[in-house]
Amino acid sequence: MGIMKPALISDDTRPRVEPAGLSACFEAIWPDVSGLLPPEAVAAVAAGAATADSEGRPCRDSLEVLRALGWPGLPVPVKLLGGGASLAQCCAAQRALGAADPALAIALNMHLFSVGLMVEHWKRRADVSWLLLEAIASQGRIVASAFAEPHLGGSVSRSTLRARRSPGGFRLSGLKRPCSLAAEADLVCFQMQVEGEDEVLVALLPTDAPGLTVQRSWDAMGMRGSGSETVRFDDCLVPDELIYYRAPAGQDDDEILAAGVIWFSLTSTACYLGVAQAAMDSARATLAGSRINHLAATRDRLPSYQGAIGDHTGALLTLESACASLAALMGQGGSPQALLPMCLAVKQQAMEVVPNAIAAAIEACGGMAYSRSLPLERLWRDAQAIRFHPPTRASTRQYLGRVALGLPAQLDLDEAAPQLEKLDESGR
Amino acid sequence: MGIMKPALISDDTRPRVEPAGLSACFEAIWPDVSGLLPPEAVAAVAAGAATADSEGRPCRDSLEVLRALGWPGLPVPVKLLGGGASLAQCCAAQRALGAADPALAIALNMHLFSVGLMVEHWKRRADVSWLLLEAIASQGRIVASAFAEPHLGGSVSRSTLRARRSPGGFRLSGLKRPCSLAAEADLVCFQMQVEGEDEVLVALLPTDAPGLTVQRSWDAMGMRGSGSETVRFDDCLVPDELIYYRAPAGQDDDEILAAGVIWFSLTSTACYLGVAQAAMDSARATLAGSRINHLAATRDRLPSYQGAIGDHTGALLTLESACASLAALMGQGGSPQALLPMCLAVKQQAMEVVPNAIAAAIEACGGMAYSRSLPLERLWRDAQAIRFHPPTRASTRQYLGRVALGLPAQLDLDEAAPQLEKLDESGR
Amino acid sequence: MGIMKPALISDDTRPRVEPAGLSACFEAIWPDVSGLLPPEAVAAVAAGAATADSEGRPCRDSLEVLRALGWPGLPVPVKLLGGGASLAQCCAAQRALGAADPALAIALNMHLFSVGLMVEHWKRRADVSWLLLEAIASQGRIVASAFAEPHLGGSVSRSTLRARRSPGGFRLSGLKRPCSLAAEADLVCFQMQVEGEDEVLVALLPTDAPGLTVQRSWDAMGMRGSGSETVRFDDCLVPDELIYYRAPAGQDDDEILAAGVIWFSLTSTACYLGVAQAAMDSARATLAGSRINHLAATRDRLPSYQGAIGDHTGALLTLESACASLAALMGQGGSPQALLPMCLAVKQQAMEVVPNAIAAAIEACGGMAYSRSLPLERLWRDAQAIRFHPPTRASTRQYLGRVALGLPAQLDLDEAAPQLEKLDESGR
Amino acid sequence: MGIMKPALISDDTRPRVEPAGLSACFEAIWPDVSGLLPPEAVAAVAAGAATADSEGRPCRDSLEVLRALGWPGLPVPVKLLGGGASLAQCCAAQRALGAADPALAIALNMHLFSVGLMVEHWKRRADVSWLLLEAIASQGRIVASAFAEPHLGGSVSRSTLRARRSPGGFRLSGLKRPCSLAAEADLVCFQMQVEGEDEVLVALLPTDAPGLTVQRSWDAMGMRGSGSETVRFDDCLVPDELIYYRAPAGQDDDEILAAGVIWFSLTSTACYLGVAQAAMDSARATLAGSRINHLAATRDRLPSYQGAIGDHTGALLTLESACASLAALMGQGGSPQALLPMCLAVKQQAMEVVPNAIAAAIEACGGMAYSRSLPLERLWRDAQAIRFHPPTRASTRQYLGRVALGLPAQLDLDEAAPQLEKLDESGR
Repeated sequence: MGIMKPALISDDTRPRVEPAGLSACFEAIWPDVSGLLPPEAVAAVAAGAATADSEGRPCRDSLEVLRALGWPGLPVPVKLLGGGASLAQCCAAQRALGAADPALAIALNMHLFSVGLMVEHWKRRADVSWLLLEAIASQGRIVASAFAEPHLGGSVSRSTLRARRSPGGFRLSGLKRPCSLAAEADLVCFQMQVEGEDEVLVALLPTDAPGLTVQRSWDAMGMRGSGSETVRFDDCLVPDELIYYRAPAGQDDDEILAAGVIWFSLTSTACYLGVAQAAMDSARATLAGSRINHLAATRDRLPSYQGAIGDHTGALLTLESACASLAALMGQGGSPQALLPMCLAVKQQAMEVVPNAIAAAIEACGGMAYSRSLPLERLWRDAQAIRFHPPTRASTRQYLGRVALGLPAQLDLDEAAPQLEKLDESGR
Repeated sequence: MGIMKPALISDDTRPRVEPAGLSACFEAIWPDVSGLLPPEAVAAVAAGAATADSEGRPCRDSLEVLRALGWPGLPVPVKLLGGGASLAQCCAAQRALGAADPALAIALNMHLFSVGLMVEHWKRRADVSWLLLEAIASQGRIVASAFAEPHLGGSVSRSTLRARRSPGGFRLSGLKRPCSLAAEADLVCFQMQVEGEDEVLVALLPTDAPGLTVQRSWDAMGMRGSGSETVRFDDCLVPDELIYYRAPAGQDDDEILAAGVIWFSLTSTACYLGVAQAAMDSARATLAGSRINHLAATRDRLPSYQGAIGDHTGALLTLESACASLAALMGQGGSPQALLPMCLAVKQQAMEVVPNAIAAAIEACGGMAYSRSLPLERLWRDAQAIRFHPPTRASTRQYLGRVALGLPAQLDLDEAAPQLEKLDESGR
Repeated sequence: MGIMKPALISDDTRPRVEPAGLSACFEAIWPDVSGLLPPEAVAAVAAGAATADSEGRPCRDSLEVLRALGWPGLPVPVKLLGGGASLAQCCAAQRALGAADPALAIALNMHLFSVGLMVEHWKRRADVSWLLLEAIASQGRIVASAFAEPHLGGSVSRSTLRARRSPGGFRLSGLKRPCSLAAEADLVCFQMQVEGEDEVLVALLPTDAPGLTVQRSWDAMGMRGSGSETVRFDDCLVPDELIYYRAPAGQDDDEILAAGVIWFSLTSTACYLGVAQAAMDSARATLAGSRINHLAATRDRLPSYQGAIGDHTGALLTLESACASLAALMGQGGSPQALLPMCLAVKQQAMEVVPNAIAAAIEACGGMAYSRSLPLERLWRDAQAIRFHPPTRASTRQYLGRVALGLPAQLDLDEAAPQLEKLDESGR
Repeated sequence: MGIMKPALISDDTRPRVEPAGLSACFEAIWPDVSGLLPPEAVAAVAAGAATADSEGRPCRDSLEVLRALGWPGLPVPVKLLGGGASLAQCCAAQRALGAADPALAIALNMHLFSVGLMVEHWKRRADVSWLLLEAIASQGRIVASAFAEPHLGGSVSRSTLRARRSPGGFRLSGLKRPCSLAAEADLVCFQMQVEGEDEVLVALLPTDAPGLTVQRSWDAMGMRGSGSETVRFDDCLVPDELIYYRAPAGQDDDEILAAGVIWFSLTSTACYLGVAQAAMDSARATLAGSRINHLAATRDRLPSYQGAIGDHTGALLTLESACASLAALMGQGGSPQALLPMCLAVKQQAMEVVPNAIAAAIEACGGMAYSRSLPLERLWRDAQAIRFHPPTRASTRQYLGRVALGLPAQLDLDEAAPQLEKLDESGR
């Protein structure tokens, strides 16, 4: 071993690591989307967020800014006149929107999910679905997703609405809610079950279709600017040619559906990572301005506050890395089958990590953060919506557990309480 | 919109998602390292783990298996006669070893860290450090890392040992512990501080150097086969030509050190992800064989147990994705400066996620898992070691918090309790 | 052993345990306060909560209901014309109020804390403080606590306001905020520091004292009906005879102060336990009415939802038992010195347990709970205020840690970051 | 208000709060049991713990010490020649034993549970059960509880063993395990189900009964000195007069059973609170001796370590208060029906709080705590057993959730996965 003689490294030539804050981290893992979504556009969207919250309506100016940028066609392939953005780019864009106006971002995320699903379909099929994608991209159409219904329990492959066969299509009556941007969208994408059959159809309708109305009903604690109203079908005709997809009720082992759930899981997580980032940015400024007199220091310079922020930074950064890398793998042609459990895992972790991080940031700032004069309280309220997007926590943890246990897994919750049912039947 | 007419998708042609378990997930994110570490070798290593645990000594047969595969030169570039494995491949290999024999994996991880650091150095320097790397790779040398000392508090850039200048080098006396594979290694890598100066030197010595002895002292709850003994220096001469690196004490803003901490953070996390995987595999088999009579079902088929496993699967999969992707980014030339906070975040999260997942798996299995007749209890004990690797939780959370707050950050804990110090001084 | 022959117990004579819900639990640990606070009064207070929230003002009708019941004198001894309620009774009453109108309950809790402190003082002193207590009880005076100030960092034994000695008392200028019920109270209790001295004085002033004004400033996310406005002192004379208490700044080892912190910790925890109870009651009704069609069951009858609620029920019941029993021990003459760490522990745990329980209940209910049409979202917003009451989490965990470590402990946070300070001084 | 003039309190007369550590807390909430269990006895028991752990056998000397003190008759009424200890006193005694030798404490806890159950029975019945209690107390008999069986899934009101009616009693074959102190006990208490009937019988047998043997099988990670061996029945006659109790299988709504579960929940929690206390004591000494050189302080004097210990101190103190107060309420004649949910809540919280506290204490101490040279690792291993005592976490959270939801609740887990069952039936 005598021959080894490494040169000494002198201090002055060593490359140094300068404190760069978190922005260098995010740049290292997320694609640059400033071309798709320029900083001025982000600033314009951010400017409308507080008003949208107080008025409980989406900011139409922000929508116009985004339409002008071709946002509706973001994930549509370039040859179909779209933005050609990958899933990772869509996530990065949604993350930026989520930081600017969480309610608008999550509302548009429903559009992105529908369009992403169509793109995944188009990639696998030689059919005419390209016409629809081209129309969305070239005409800047916004698609609202009317998949939520009161008694679905978060199922993503069922409907409680029953459609009746009718000449040229199906007749449908019933309610869908909440449906983001229902009053602002051009098209509605929704599912329905065929009466007397075990089949679920997914269809699209223009929002001005006869029999389709939007009822104002959205008045929530947060995400107030998402316009998540009620869509009402009154004996509305759904023509055969607008039926997009069919599958047996409750079946969710389809690769395209898996791809759709992946799109939704990652883009929605990205929105909330944006919300978390906005909250952390606001907390940083607040902590830097919040002096504790008897310690002669601002809060940000005290170990307790650094540690409390650091705990959640660790959780957030892990989530960011996972979300960004899974989106990239999907874009590189990764198998939806293999990636689905990890994407659901990321969505499930985000339900834990994002609200906890924002709560801790607010707590660190003290009572000031509770006031409506800072954006923190709005971001806190908006972030809570992460708890409600299907698939629910209950079904996701069962799904993940079954995958880990090597059992067949589905996204619908599968459980019963037989003893309690017996008591019910015996007349309690 | 009348022109769009997407073709109906019929059931029989849709690609289906088959339940594939977690292995498909892991394959999607980790590189295949079966060429570097064939399944037979993994099986051979696994066979020695229980004995190593009960005897409290590393399994020498397993070490020989790995030496024969060229494991010591794994990350050394091919042109220096090494395995040329990337950080991501090293992580994948350590993950497999961690599942087979956690103690051996974590012990060898210290070697990997030292060699990874040298490789990062070599990539940035046109010096003769290649000689050392070539020697390690071609002769299968194992390098023990003697960086731990009793009163360092997890600092990675200081030493409590004082070296005295002497003709041709430095004279050193003192103890280093715990030092994994101290008795099995060919070389020891360690740091020392120059007497009367604020400079830390990193050096290498052959384990048979005069004045260097190994004292048997390792008798721990877990990782019993890691051979983490005490290295004793008695007026031992460290020649100038074996001094590898110099830096002021406490300074950790060096890109090579950052790269080294990244190597350690990710490869050690990968080891513990392997331990978690082994525990989950064992729990799966146990739950599938554990019938609850009054429910007429095995535990794995019950929603409660699925959900409990699923909660931790979600956390583990998120961590796996983050760890694998950061290792890949580093291999693609990512900036250590930008990646360091995320890699520390992953290591910090692993301290939470891995022990909790194993505890939950064991709890789900019931009292059986407490018995020494199943491997679960050994994996559980081994996994606890994750709490002790520097940088400590306390310093990492402060580091991450400071990065998030836009403040200068260092890996050494920086804090004091001035009021308490006053009381101490006033003689309480 | 042959002699033992226990009689068989036949089924029909065994006492049975009927499902009684949680109310039987609460009755077992909390004193009955329906005499002090009749159900009709609770119902009347509950009826005003939603309006108080939307208008952002305390409900004056509810205040009148409570004044009519003698609520301001609740803890004042009977011989001083008060309600003679013990700390445990006060907690039980606050718990009931917290379930009815959280904002009013927490606002009145500040009164209770001031009066509780005076009672503890009076018990230990043969002075004329009984005059004040008698006035509060007999005239139904409400005392607002103006202890919060912007840069205190949650200290309970300091002030940033400087009082100047002046003939007959002190002259004071400055702001106190937030101060609950500032505009509704008859008296204000507050602390100030003597200019140029290290002494803190606690004083009382009528709210109509010259130079004292109330500025409307309260517009928060939750607890909107607490009227926590800003009290402004403009060269206001504080007469010597209204100075109630003196102590060196930062000193908190006084038994009366300890008793005061115990009063505040337990009664405020009880308020939030009431909020949690109201949320659980609302969630129970929602879950019982929320059917998941494909499982043919309402959510409350499904194991996942039962388990999720059960996790938090476990944490809440433990907290209820601890809170109730410590209040009882204090009433039995327990030493404030011995009880303080446990009461702070209960307050600290409540910060974790209550928001988590409510969030989980809301998540279980699904998106419906996010709507303003159910009381859940209001309760959720109100509950977040638990994060802001001093002593802060940071100082409390340090206090508890020091007690456990056998070190001197104080309620003020005691820490510094010496390295960062050096960087600051060097001009960064 | 002009009349009020509270006297100023001068510094020198105020009662001061001296730092008293946690012992003052414990004294305030737990009864003094130094009469029942003198410090010398505790010290003698503590002295045997390490050897019992390494040898994997109960310490017989410690058992003799306790027998000599009349420990077996501790909860037996004085008029039946017992110690007359209340449940609160038994908890306090078990807490002290748990700190001294966790394995012996938890083993004896099974005896205490059986005897406590008999006492609760005797209080409610005018039968001859007093004979048995008197025998236990006067002759110092130890009763082993053989209630655990491999496929019970933690049910407390069922058995998988089938007893055949036979002249004079029942014939029984089968295994019970683990059964603490099986080889040291005088009597075994166990349950069995009548062949062909839905009835569970609880009986007692002397350990020298023909057909009853003890098989050495206990070799676990922790609680190694609990002697939790296998009891084997080979066509063993259980005479009618030794059958103690009968109930339909799965029925757990009996007040005496509820009282028994309360005894077990609180005394076992108290054991583990003792283990936690011993770990905290050991950690305190270790942290006070563990200097971090670059901070020039021992770990206990650093805010990070104080805060980390403080977080868990808060959780532990809340649990201690709840456990002690519920035991006291039970002793004051509280209704088992009302107290059961809270006692189960305490047991369930302890499963979370105790292992987390010990893990955090160990982590704070650093690698030293992983070594077998300190008692911390043994206490960590012992504490993990808290995860395995029935009722299990899964059934308890369902029970608590159902109580909170106003539904009928039972201690047996009640759940199924109907979709998965269908797949199973269809031949997967």
